[in-house]
Amino acid sequence: MPAEFEPHDACWMLWPERRDNWRARAQPAQRAFTAVAGAIARFEPVSVGASAQQYATARAALPAAVRVVELSSDDAWMRDVGPSFVVNAAGALRGVHWRFNAWGGLYRDFRRDRQVAHKVLELAGCERYCAPLINEGGAIHVDGQGTVLVTEQCLLKRNPSLSRVQLERLLKRYLGASCVIWLGEGVIDDETSGHIDNLACFARPGEVCLTWSDDRHDPQHRVSQDAWERLMAARDARGRRLVVHRLPSPGPLYMTRREARGVVANRAIRALRAGQRLAGSYVNFYLANGAVILPLLDASTDGAARQVLRRVFPRRRIVGLPAREILLGGGDLHCITQQQPRRGPGRRTGSE
Amino acid sequence: MPAEFEPHDACWMLWPERRDNWRARAQPAQRAFTAVAGAIARFEPVSVGASAQQYATARAALPAAVRVVELSSDDAWMRDVGPSFVVNAAGALRGVHWRFNAWGGLYRDFRRDRQVAHKVLELAGCERYCAPLINEGGAIHVDGQGTVLVTEQCLLKRNPSLSRVQLERLLKRYLGASCVIWLGEGVIDDETSGHIDNLACFARPGEVCLTWSDDRHDPQHRVSQDAWERLMAARDARGRRLVVHRLPSPGPLYMTRREARGVVANRAIRALRAGQRLAGSYVNFYLANGAVILPLLDASTDGAARQVLRRVFPRRRIVGLPAREILLGGGDLHCITQQQPRRGPGRRTGSE
Repeated sequence: MPAEFEPHDACWMLWPERRDNWRARAQPAQRAFTAVAGAIARFEPVSVGASAQQYATARAALPAAVRVVELSSDDAWMRDVGPSFVVNAAGALRGVHWRFNAWGGLYRDFRRDRQVAHKVLELAGCERYCAPLINEGGAIHVDGQGTVLVTEQCLLKRNPSLSRVQLERLLKRYLGASCVIWLGEGVIDDETSGHIDNLACFARPGEVCLTWSDDRHDPQHRVSQDAWERLMAARDARGRRLVVHRLPSPGPLYMTRREARGVVANRAIRALRAGQRLAGSYVNFYLANGAVILPLLDASTDGAARQVLRRVFPRRRIVGLPAREILLGGGDLHCITQQQPRRGPGRRTGSE
Repeated sequence: MPAEFEPHDACWMLWPERRDNWRARAQPAQRAFTAVAGAIARFEPVSVGASAQQYATARAALPAAVRVVELSSDDAWMRDVGPSFVVNAAGALRGVHWRFNAWGGLYRDFRRDRQVAHKVLELAGCERYCAPLINEGGAIHVDGQGTVLVTEQCLLKRNPSLSRVQLERLLKRYLGASCVIWLGEGVIDDETSGHIDNLACFARPGEVCLTWSDDRHDPQHRVSQDAWERLMAARDARGRRLVVHRLPSPGPLYMTRREARGVVANRAIRALRAGQRLAGSYVNFYLANGAVILPLLDASTDGAARQVLRRVFPRRRIVGLPAREILLGGGDLHCITQQQPRRGPGRRTGSE
């Protein structure tokens, strides 16, 4: 599996519409998604999938440079329901289609989410590997050289019938990896049960960004400290020690009453409630070709996060976008994207 | 607009599902469409658009070589609701999106049909020209050298506010044509109000296939005779006289009671009734790269039609497929397809 920091041919996204997860008829979220799609489209081709009902709305809202395709889902988290693109031994692009259970059952009907990866792969003209474990794209990060980064909290919880050894074997087989680095828990109150893409990610081979809190009264401190220690002790697939860059945690952030009131009640889904902590993290950025698309979450920490990323990615443009409306839906900027790696020769040369 | 007999990059189709137009829960039609998609896919890439509800069914039924994309419609006539692909002055592929009113109002709700051309063009990565007249792909045939073939019955009826001169001007402008040949009426009892693609088509520049009946008691005789005379009198865009190949009419064919009973009643659409004449015609074939995909309609005339086409297309394979189930829905094999011409240099060299 090529890493996200390698060159892309495209970025895939979905269009948010469900009113029992997105406040105010999903319109603030649609504006936020539109800004993300438009920003990424300046660096690589973007396709946004919308349901038949929302197609015209999405097409009218999104910039002309963004391709809109009919592609329905049960929500809009392309990172998790889309395929994980890999390259086979012959160099051809393929997609892994993970089993999916709505993040352990956040909502009951997820038949459309289950089809998204297949539909994307049909559109991309890629063959599909169906992997026999429950997983989401947000639960894995790779360095493109055989290292996979995951959390115990997420993988083990999602697959209670599989042992850690069995999970490692499956991850290695389907991602073409040789080394799995296990962190413990994910970001506090993350309803994905600890997705790695909110906690830590690879900036390049041998270098990891980690969300960090110095506040010892914040439970996030303990989680990040544990991740830090594990990362310090780890060796990657090539036997290297890792360099870790700390990104400050925003907030803590909480859902306001006003925000919660805008969501249509539905007992069949677990939506966020007023007062609930939001799992905001600057690690949830997206790496487009030549750019970092950074979620802006808290005016008091946005600048510091941007500074760290400028140092980590000196040759990429840092594009910050307001992401609170995405966060209110239960994920963040990275969670609504899925990169399609560049095909053919030159793929591994990198964009930086 | 390149002609259908020129090389294609792809063929677009839709998946039939509505039970108030297709008998027996659309299953016999789905089998017929599957056979057509599979046959064409041996010669060129085929994409079939299916609604979210039918996606899994379509994907399971269609051969792996056929791409299935989510693309909903109000019925399944890609010829008429899809774009008409054209090439601009710079040689780039573009699509004409005609205005659409469900063939003069065969059903009331056609909001999805109206979006199909746009969605196909997004998928194909082509810009769009929105043409200010009501038209369908089945109402025009071109020779790729500036000649358009239409019927008065269809174009004038669809656009009562436009004169013949105005229609000619619009057709020329949007299809890049310089000459419009008007035939009179279309095939008897054609619910499209006389689509040209059921009556006559270009086999190559200067040569036309025409559906023919020698039976003076059949009203089709008079219609074909009139078309013949007009074709004989016509000159194409390059000033040539036309050679006309006659294809025998099948039948006449009628809808049986059993067939009609299988359709779910719905007063909001004009479906075919028992005893109604079916507008069968062998002219409704599809030209794939190197092949003629021929609708088989009547055992007593199929062989004769095939023989004519062998003579007209000596370098194409003639592939006959049972098409009665398509006919029962109100159209035929050509009506469920739409070719996407080959891009770039070499486009005009032809496949024969």
